[in-house]
Order: sequence, then structure tokens, then C-alpha cells
Amino acid sequence: MIRLCIWNEFRHELREPVKSLYPEGIHRAIADGIDCEGIDIRFATLDDPEQGLSDEILNNTDVLIWWAHLAHREVADSLAAKIRDRVLAGMGLIVLHSGHMSKIFQAVMGTSCTLRWRQIGEKERLWTVDPSHPIVKGVPETFTLEHEEMYGEPFGIPDDGKIVFMSWFAGGDVFRSGVTFQRGAGKVFYFAPGHETFPTYYDRNVLKVISNAVRWAAPAEYFPIECRKWAEPEEKVQ
Amino acid sequence: MIRLCIWNEFRHELREPVKSLYPEGIHRAIADGIDCEGIDIRFATLDDPEQGLSDEILNNTDVLIWWAHLAHREVADSLAAKIRDRVLAGMGLIVLHSGHMSKIFQAVMGTSCTLRWRQIGEKERLWTVDPSHPIVKGVPETFTLEHEEMYGEPFGIPDDGKIVFMSWFAGGDVFRSGVTFQRGAGKVFYFAPGHETFPTYYDRNVLKVISNAVRWAAPAEYFPIECRKWAEPEEKVQ
Amino acid sequence: MIRLCIWNEFRHELREPVKSLYPEGIHRAIADGIDCEGIDIRFATLDDPEQGLSDEILNNTDVLIWWAHLAHREVADSLAAKIRDRVLAGMGLIVLHSGHMSKIFQAVMGTSCTLRWRQIGEKERLWTVDPSHPIVKGVPETFTLEHEEMYGEPFGIPDDGKIVFMSWFAGGDVFRSGVTFQRGAGKVFYFAPGHETFPTYYDRNVLKVISNAVRWAAPAEYFPIECRKWAEPEEKVQ
Amino acid sequence: MIRLCIWNEFRHELREPVKSLYPEGIHRAIADGIDCEGIDIRFATLDDPEQGLSDEILNNTDVLIWWAHLAHREVADSLAAKIRDRVLAGMGLIVLHSGHMSKIFQAVMGTSCTLRWRQIGEKERLWTVDPSHPIVKGVPETFTLEHEEMYGEPFGIPDDGKIVFMSWFAGGDVFRSGVTFQRGAGKVFYFAPGHETFPTYYDRNVLKVISNAVRWAAPAEYFPIECRKWAEPEEKVQ
Repeated sequence: MIRLCIWNEFRHELREPVKSLYPEGIHRAIADGIDCEGIDIRFATLDDPEQGLSDEILNNTDVLIWWAHLAHREVADSLAAKIRDRVLAGMGLIVLHSGHMSKIFQAVMGTSCTLRWRQIGEKERLWTVDPSHPIVKGVPETFTLEHEEMYGEPFGIPDDGKIVFMSWFAGGDVFRSGVTFQRGAGKVFYFAPGHETFPTYYDRNVLKVISNAVRWAAPAEYFPIECRKWAEPEEKVQ
Repeated sequence: MIRLCIWNEFRHELREPVKSLYPEGIHRAIADGIDCEGIDIRFATLDDPEQGLSDEILNNTDVLIWWAHLAHREVADSLAAKIRDRVLAGMGLIVLHSGHMSKIFQAVMGTSCTLRWRQIGEKERLWTVDPSHPIVKGVPETFTLEHEEMYGEPFGIPDDGKIVFMSWFAGGDVFRSGVTFQRGAGKVFYFAPGHETFPTYYDRNVLKVISNAVRWAAPAEYFPIECRKWAEPEEKVQ
Repeated sequence: MIRLCIWNEFRHELREPVKSLYPEGIHRAIADGIDCEGIDIRFATLDDPEQGLSDEILNNTDVLIWWAHLAHREVADSLAAKIRDRVLAGMGLIVLHSGHMSKIFQAVMGTSCTLRWRQIGEKERLWTVDPSHPIVKGVPETFTLEHEEMYGEPFGIPDDGKIVFMSWFAGGDVFRSGVTFQRGAGKVFYFAPGHETFPTYYDRNVLKVISNAVRWAAPAEYFPIECRKWAEPEEKVQ
Repeated sequence: MIRLCIWNEFRHELREPVKSLYPEGIHRAIADGIDCEGIDIRFATLDDPEQGLSDEILNNTDVLIWWAHLAHREVADSLAAKIRDRVLAGMGLIVLHSGHMSKIFQAVMGTSCTLRWRQIGEKERLWTVDPSHPIVKGVPETFTLEHEEMYGEPFGIPDDGKIVFMSWFAGGDVFRSGVTFQRGAGKVFYFAPGHETFPTYYDRNVLKVISNAVRWAAPAEYFPIECRKWAEPEEKVQ
């Protein structure tokens, strides 16, 4: 059983126009849409006690999905640090859309994570770059979102990202829109689509990608981060 | 002219036994030992005003060398953040020895940076893994430090590190002891040798590596980090 | 069921001293030693018809283990090309020891694959560099082979190798002794230990590594390599 | 002085419509268009003696540009092997457009190098992904080719490619259109634009990219590939 926690900022959905589109929040739309077999889902939001992620919850989460936009700064530094440590120990992390500017994503990337953007609701077409990757299983070679926010290059991420998807935008931009990383024992997946004013989290292909990503990111086991570790010599030292 | 700033914690050298070995500090030993042609050197230490790195100094530094050990926590978070932004904009960063646990190195790695260690003064042998790398120019394929602290695997760094040196230790350990990274526009080099109780920074080969690394890490130009950047469409969007 | 084919040059074992050590060949020692649950094993050797790998056999192999030393040049170019295409389509490839100079390994690396070597039977100590990798599951953080051939850096492989093991040798050398790669849809693992005059393929840890590697390398599905593929435009082009 | 050799298949240009566009061949158009300061240019074509690349010429070339399309199979395997060895020793290699299916590019990649394509003369827009890379110096963040052949993902290259450019095509495709690799001591750059029926090699930005790439790929020195190299132990082995 994969213990999935979907963390959502849950501020946009409190008022229109997002309220009508995601009346119970983006987190519940994702939970309702993905294939839940073998997955145990819980929710957490920014305005929950302890910002939704007590130690008890975090230590019982195998994969964490993160959606946020307006309130990155409100997330406690100490919480971002705890999540980072949990990722390094093996927890999977799936960062969606505007989460690219979250403290936790920047913390595990070590870079700016900045990008070009344009919110005019243009067409986005995604392409699978690695057809053999488990995250694209069952997803067509290309699929289209009729209206999305444009996220474009240059994207400020490190070079060890394995590109799974690249996106084309009607307005003339391109983007590495699905990228995986390993940080310590933990797997990280950044997936770009998901602006709050569009029905992206009702799209069959987007949901399939997230379903696959949860399974891909789940750890087989955990590896506690040790501090610098004293080691006895294995060989005799004169 | 490369504007090099050598930042040193400069605490160990205030008392014995390090005081006798590096009476003017590790920073000055490095400055005295490296090939300075075309390099303009300034120094900064933890106990200087603004921890040695005012905005004015940081913004006029092309390559920053970082040696630290006891007082990583005393370095201001805000300073580590400023250095990170300067690296992303292009400044080179050379992190030495115990600097692997510094805030600035962890910030640009996004990982734990932990390792095994053993301080019994055993022999370390370094091997060049990429003979064509500019950092190893003029350095023999292998060279030995008679007494060093052991730093051993597993080393908690990301996979995009380009390995330049690997080390052998008499006590039976191995280590990726010279590794480069790119973060934004900036080049980063981690170089493991340099425990404060050994004369490592008087070693001809170590000094040659640092000389080369300063030249390798110096940026051709700077690229200010922009926030998320609005972009007009290049193509007509229906 | 993973369909494993263990290909062995099978020349050394025809005469002493190797004959006594591996009387039925290295391929059978590996088959006898690894955990075979869920694995269906067949054998192939250089002197079999079609050098052991008819199209029918190759197209029904999920993971290919390759041990070779004396007769790399005897392997047909056309066979190496076929194996390469099968790897790109998804077949796993595990290259052992002196297989680093085989046509198939060089073909998928694109580099020289050369290394330093010394055959005096010195002690080798292996270190796990990524404790979370499925290939090291159940393998201790470090283990020792009392007598092995030294393989040392510089090792002529590309930078995208994910290092799983690094080795220490008594004579003073270090080596990236377990490295994974992806080529097309196929997973590749190079594992250095295994000189024919030593009982390496009776070592519990070595066998555990190979057992794990077979499972790790097995493809979920196959992706036929298409030639350059004409594509209709997805968007209307003025 | 960088000794540049521009190798061109030079078959398309012998007849219309390419003859009118590149009357003296693509190789000479490139030579006429790039910034030649500090560069000594020679030409080689498929129908020259020894296919243009005698040992003497190859051993006196620092950077080789390769344009080919119709006649990949006519290039001798032995020549491709020699070029590969020269690259591993340090020679820079710039592979243009349809050269992605050449023997030499496939040999250094180790993968299929296949891609999607469409020749309807649609608009291509290139984006710089790494603004700090020396290859994009002086090139705008984005530039357009009004008519090009579409090359699209999935592109069968290994993961260690450093992406410098990504392309957008009017028909809805995206592509990693400028990618660098290191192979042994040699630098390799693949640059996608350049279909023979379009005036791409008269485009100011394309020529700037090639000018930069020649300088970037030129080796500081050469490192002969050694065979497997016997090594005396550095430490005493009991």
C-alpha cells in the first residue's frame, strides 16, 4: 500500500472563478481522478494545523504531491527542511505546476527554478521524450490541453533531470514539462500542467501521468540520513 | 583579471596545533601557494564585518573559495542565500574539504552532502578520472598525500556531478574527491583534501588543482537571475 | 518470468588452471549461484551455432549477461549490431569484468572503455555508492574479494553512468566498478569483478549483485526501434 | 589556430534545386559565413580521395564539421572508426542536421539517434535553454527560421546530452535541437537545423552558433587512447 499525501495550498479554490471549477479543491479532484488501486490517500492543506504536515503525517507518507502558488512564502522554512530530509530518506515528491517556485522544490534543486510564463489560455501539446519511462505507460505519444498557462524555457533546473515530457505552446514556446530527479534515496518528479483556472486535473492523460508517477516515486524502503559518519578503518594502517 | 575571494572560517588557526601549521590562516597559505597570474586575490573570514562578504564584496567576486568546519551554523542564512544567487548568476564556487557541510554547498546541491570520515592521518592517493579536464592540467595521473583525513563513500551528492578525482585511502575507503557541477550560470567544484592539521595546502599538486580550478570556474559573463518572466507570445494565438 | 540468457566466451575454462575452478564454465557457476526465482535461464557460448545467439534466441531474451575476454574480435560485427538493437528496444544487458572491451559494450557506450589493470591477485574492496539502488539490496555497505584483478581509473566511459559501486584495491587503485546506463529503452549494468582465475562467481555478495541486476534490468515491455519516422503535422501550418 | 575541417557529403548540391541555393556546396557556404578569426579551414567531401579524410588530414584536424544525408552507408566503417578514435583523443565534432543518422554520430552516441521528421518547410523557432553556454554567446534568446524540415521528439540520444537549444515547430512538434556531449577527451555538438533545400546556412544566427561551436569544441590538447594499460602497484601488496 502506497501512502500518498496530496498537499494543496487550497486558497484559489475558496473564491471564483476557481471555486466553481474545483469546488472541493485541486487535491480532491486529483484524488478522485487517479487510479487509486493500492494507494491510500490523505489530504493536507496550508491552513491545516502544522500546515498539514505534522511529523506524524510526514513520517507516514510515501509519496507527497505538492500544489501551491500564492503562498510559497507562508510555508515554514522548518517544514520545507523536514520535507527535504524525508525526500532524501526515500519519500517520493511530485511537484505540480506553480510548485516550481515552492521552497521544497527549490531546496532539492539547488537552483532558481525560474521560467518564462504567459497566462492567455493557449493550447499546450505534450510530447513523450522517453517512451520507455514508467511514468508514460498508457499515455499517448502526444496529447493536447486546449487551454493552459504557458511555462517556457529557459527553465532554471540542474542538468541531471531526466526529461520525460516536453511541451509545445501555440504562442511559440517550448518547455521541459515533465522531468525526474533523484535526491538522496528519494525520487522527484516535476510536472508542469495544472493552472488553477483550467480543468487540467480532469484530463484523462494528466491523471494517468500522475497515477503512474505516484507508483514510480514510491520507495521500496527508507534510508535515514545519517550525519557525517565516523568509520573504523577496514584495512590496517601503518 | 579574475577577482578571487578566499573565504576562511579562520577559527582553527587561532590556537595550536593548527596555529603553527598555518600561522596566517589557511586562506593566506592558499593565496601564497597558487599561481596568481591574472588573479586578483582578496580575503574574507567569518569574524570580519558582515561575515566577510558585504554585497559590495560579493558582487565584485568572480570566484569564491570556501573553507569552513566548526562554525557552519554561524554563517547567516541570508548570506548563504546571497552567495547561492551570485553562483546562479555566474560566480564560480570552490568548496574545500569540510565545506561539504556548509550551508552554501548544501544549498546548491539540494542533498545531504554527508559522508563517512576518519581522522587518523592515513595516506590518501588521488587519481585523475578525466585526464582532459582543465582542472587536472599539469597534475600527474596520481599523487599522494601522506597524511589526510579520510572522507569516504557514500557521499550524498546528486548525480550530475562530473567526477574529476577519485581518492584511495590506506584504511580501505574510496571517495569522489573532486567533482564539478553547474548551477544556473555558475560553476561549482568540490575538492576534498585539506584537513587543518595537515600541510595539505602546501602540497604542490593540491595547489595546482586549486590554481586550475579558479581559472576554470571564472565566468565569461554574468546572467542576473530573473524572477518568473512574463513573455509575450511569439506566434499568433487564435 | 524473466528470460535470462547467460552468454559466455567459454574458452578459458577448457584448460587449466581455470578448468578446475569453473569446470562447467563461468556461465553455469553464475546460474547455479544466483537466486533463480522467477527467472528462466538459458546458456549461450561463442562456439555454439550462430555464436550462441540466433535471432530466435535473442528475440526471446529479456536480460543478457556477457562474459568474454580472449576472443572479443571473433564476435561477428553483425551479432554485436543485433544485440545493440535489442538493447535499444528494451533488453537488459549485464556486462561482466573483461567484457568492458567487448564489441557490444563499446557499441552502446560510444567510448574507448579502456582502463588500467594489474593481475597480481590483490585484495579488492567494493563500496556501495547509492545505498537505495535496487542492485545493492541485501548487499553490505562494503564487501571484500580477497583476490581479484585490479581494474583502475581512468575508465573510458561516458558521464551518464550512474555509479552503484566503487572499488578500492590493495595496490593503491580505485575504480567505478558497478555502473548503470540507459540506452534507448534498455538498461545496461557494468560490473567489474570476475577474473577467470579467482572464485569470484562463487562469492555470495557478487552473486547477490548479479541476482538483483537481472531483476533491475528486465524490461516491462519492448519498444521497437523505428527508423526515422515521418509525422503528419498536428497543427495547421499556414 | 584552430584547424577546422568541414566535411560535406556534397551530392545534393550537384543538381537542382539545391545547386542554385548552394552552388559551391554547403561546406563553402558555412566557411564563407562563419567568423574565421583564428580558424584555418579546409574542406573534405565524400567523393574526394579516401573520402576526404586521409590519416594525415584527420590527424591535423582540431574540429570536424559533418554534413551528410543520402550516403551515410557509403562512408567506410574504417573511416567512422578512425574519426571516433580521433574524437576520443580530443578532436571536436560538430554534427549538422541529417548527420544524426551518420555512422560517426551513431558510433559516439551508442543509441539509435532516430527521430520524427516532416519536410513541409514549416517555421522553426529555436530557444536557448542554457543562456550561459559559450555556444549561445551573441545569439538571441529565441530566433526563427521561416522554413525548415521538422525534426521532432522522441530523439534517440543518451541522457548525458547537455541541452543548449530546444526547437518549436509550427506543425506542433518540439525537439532538442542543440545538444552537447563529451566522449573521451572530445567535445561533440549536434545542431539540428540545415535542410539542403532551405537557406539555413546563410542565416546569421545559425552561422553564429556554428562559429561559437567551433571555438567551444576545439581541444586544448590531445590524449591518445591507450589500450588497456598495465599498471604497477603504487602500494606494497602483501
